[in-house]
Amino acid sequence: MSNCIVAQSGGPSSVINATVAGVVKANQLNPLYEHVYGGLNGIEGILQERFVDLTNMSEEENLKLRQTPSSALGSCRYKLKRDNVADFEKIIAIMDKYDIETLFYTGGNDSMDTVAALSEYAAKHNITNHRFVGCPKTIDNDLMETDHCPGFASAAKFIATTELQCWYDVNVYPASRKEVFILETMGRDAGWLAASACLSGKVDILIVPEVAFDKEKFLKRVKEIVEEKSKCFVVVSEGAHYADGTYISAGEAKNDLFGHAVLGGAGETLKNMILDNDIAPRCKVQDLSTAQRCHATEQSLVDVTESFRLGMSAHARTADPKFTGKMVGVRRRAGADHYDAEFFAVDADKVANYVKNFPVEWLQPDYKGITQEAVDYMLPLIQGNPVILYDENGLPAYVTPYYMRDEK
Amino acid sequence: MSNCIVAQSGGPSSVINATVAGVVKANQLNPLYEHVYGGLNGIEGILQERFVDLTNMSEEENLKLRQTPSSALGSCRYKLKRDNVADFEKIIAIMDKYDIETLFYTGGNDSMDTVAALSEYAAKHNITNHRFVGCPKTIDNDLMETDHCPGFASAAKFIATTELQCWYDVNVYPASRKEVFILETMGRDAGWLAASACLSGKVDILIVPEVAFDKEKFLKRVKEIVEEKSKCFVVVSEGAHYADGTYISAGEAKNDLFGHAVLGGAGETLKNMILDNDIAPRCKVQDLSTAQRCHATEQSLVDVTESFRLGMSAHARTADPKFTGKMVGVRRRAGADHYDAEFFAVDADKVANYVKNFPVEWLQPDYKGITQEAVDYMLPLIQGNPVILYDENGLPAYVTPYYMRDEK
Repeated sequence: MSNCIVAQSGGPSSVINATVAGVVKANQLNPLYEHVYGGLNGIEGILQERFVDLTNMSEEENLKLRQTPSSALGSCRYKLKRDNVADFEKIIAIMDKYDIETLFYTGGNDSMDTVAALSEYAAKHNITNHRFVGCPKTIDNDLMETDHCPGFASAAKFIATTELQCWYDVNVYPASRKEVFILETMGRDAGWLAASACLSGKVDILIVPEVAFDKEKFLKRVKEIVEEKSKCFVVVSEGAHYADGTYISAGEAKNDLFGHAVLGGAGETLKNMILDNDIAPRCKVQDLSTAQRCHATEQSLVDVTESFRLGMSAHARTADPKFTGKMVGVRRRAGADHYDAEFFAVDADKVANYVKNFPVEWLQPDYKGITQEAVDYMLPLIQGNPVILYDENGLPAYVTPYYMRDEK
Repeated sequence: MSNCIVAQSGGPSSVINATVAGVVKANQLNPLYEHVYGGLNGIEGILQERFVDLTNMSEEENLKLRQTPSSALGSCRYKLKRDNVADFEKIIAIMDKYDIETLFYTGGNDSMDTVAALSEYAAKHNITNHRFVGCPKTIDNDLMETDHCPGFASAAKFIATTELQCWYDVNVYPASRKEVFILETMGRDAGWLAASACLSGKVDILIVPEVAFDKEKFLKRVKEIVEEKSKCFVVVSEGAHYADGTYISAGEAKNDLFGHAVLGGAGETLKNMILDNDIAPRCKVQDLSTAQRCHATEQSLVDVTESFRLGMSAHARTADPKFTGKMVGVRRRAGADHYDAEFFAVDADKVANYVKNFPVEWLQPDYKGITQEAVDYMLPLIQGNPVILYDENGLPAYVTPYYMRDEK
């Protein structure tokens, strides 16, 4: 019996470890491999033969791993280039050396490109004893083919919850105190995360990268809303931009004389616009920054469960010796009268290097937010709360990152 | 039987409503008053006779109210000035008109000054049928006399949890990627909130208003830590300042030619310092901003329970017709072998207008964080998680703010 290895890449999420936990648990229940190794820091660490052995992970560790944010195996930004043959040869040699049959790689579209490139290389060189399987992961929810990406829903839930809570906070002062609140979310290319704030029902203006930003139109809307109800709630993607592609933040930062390319992101730039143009006397920005992708204490139960099961499904599919170059995706079970997910496999090269934008037909005109169709798509994904284990200090119990332990 | 009124003031917290819920519940169990009114937008709304009737609040509404962030009755920044006799006369007249015997006022030191001023006025004019009782509330934890302030612990728990989660996020990339992470917390005068991040055990450098900021020393420490372990975790209070009292943020903002007094707060300023001085190639700032005081989905069970019981205790104490001009505080039960709180009463004027700083003897030298004594003080306060009720949309179930309902 040969071995398998699982590794993580790209920006982490709060449920990416659940996929690793799923692969490990699946192999305990149905041992297709003698050892399940964890590759540290993605493909970068695998090239350095930095592994840990996860085969006999305890149930307690597995439960903690599912709720531990970020990538417990470490991540990398290393991109395997197709013309760098040495890297491909080295990976195959290392897999030979450790008798590793299958590499499970969790990540976004760059990672799916790595899976596609490795399986293409293997096919071209008639290598049939090494296989490569992708597991989608990105809070950005911008991967093609899959209905949604594990990690998105938990981030969306935190964003919508924060928007709701901030709405309560900003509204406490009397109507005489006019104020604009701006929530900035991640999303350089796609507006999924910003759009998710609308699940709170408390967003007046939504600005996403899918629709060109029009400063005059925006300020006019803010002014109308502040006049009508004293408080105005804006949500903006970090990647929102003007029609010519200039990021909102960059658009103002070019006035900066101090050499800092970005003063404070899209939210801060909108704030300055609002104040400079006397649209409202007060404006506050909440940039969710890193917290939105690692706030694992409010995982969506649907999300973390799907992430875990996706790992199990990926593991099970490799019982077929021809299963390689695929990504395991999620889709909604057709004909079900309630939300229900099932997994399927798709060629990784159909996912690599594409971006799935938020559908413009799901946006209301004039920055007014999202349609019911968009709500119906997102709402089932954020449901439920897993039981979170806490340690004796009153903080959530997390596993020690594997990249910080003694290495094999 | 006369009536009472409860109102809220100042910056809200995630458990301030639990005190209101406690007053209401106490009167249902032990009816000292015929009606429990809620005064909208603090003293400002009371002066406008804007009330709601909370007397018969359902158990379901009471449970939801305890987990609803911010001030469900609305807040104000209105400060009662002792020389503004008209305001005092008007308040007494309104209390007469609605047969209101007792005003419960939740807030920080400004609110305790309001309680003190009103009771002094009443005493001076031999008004014995109107009484004024303060309930402490501030995430800043900077009120005198009370061991701690309801609201602090839940904010502290969210801050420490976020610091822990961000530590996992920032560490995922290999050691070759050197990076500084800066968490900025509230705390204009006192460092309690910033200090609470240290409960995560993941803070390398802590900068609070209680210790003058020394730029050279700070940059030297950051450099040492980045060299030693590649990642450095900094936590800073918004109110941290230089020896001459200049805020860290203001210190850089004075270079701003665009008329904005503060470019991005203390965290952004430290980030620019680090980058401009080539201390590290990467630096990220997480400003917790509004979320830290309204993130009610991670209330500390100890905190929300104490806040509720403090409301009950304040109500019960007014059975004594002489009970006025007091704040109800929290103290640790002496001699207990585990953390246990009890309530006590103190003259509101001993609390008004003072600030309780974070004890400098609880700080390690060279920005190294807090002592075990500080941990022992804070740790019992953040324990436990209340069961949070969710609505059918998968988001936490909150009461509609009373200031948005039809008013009495």
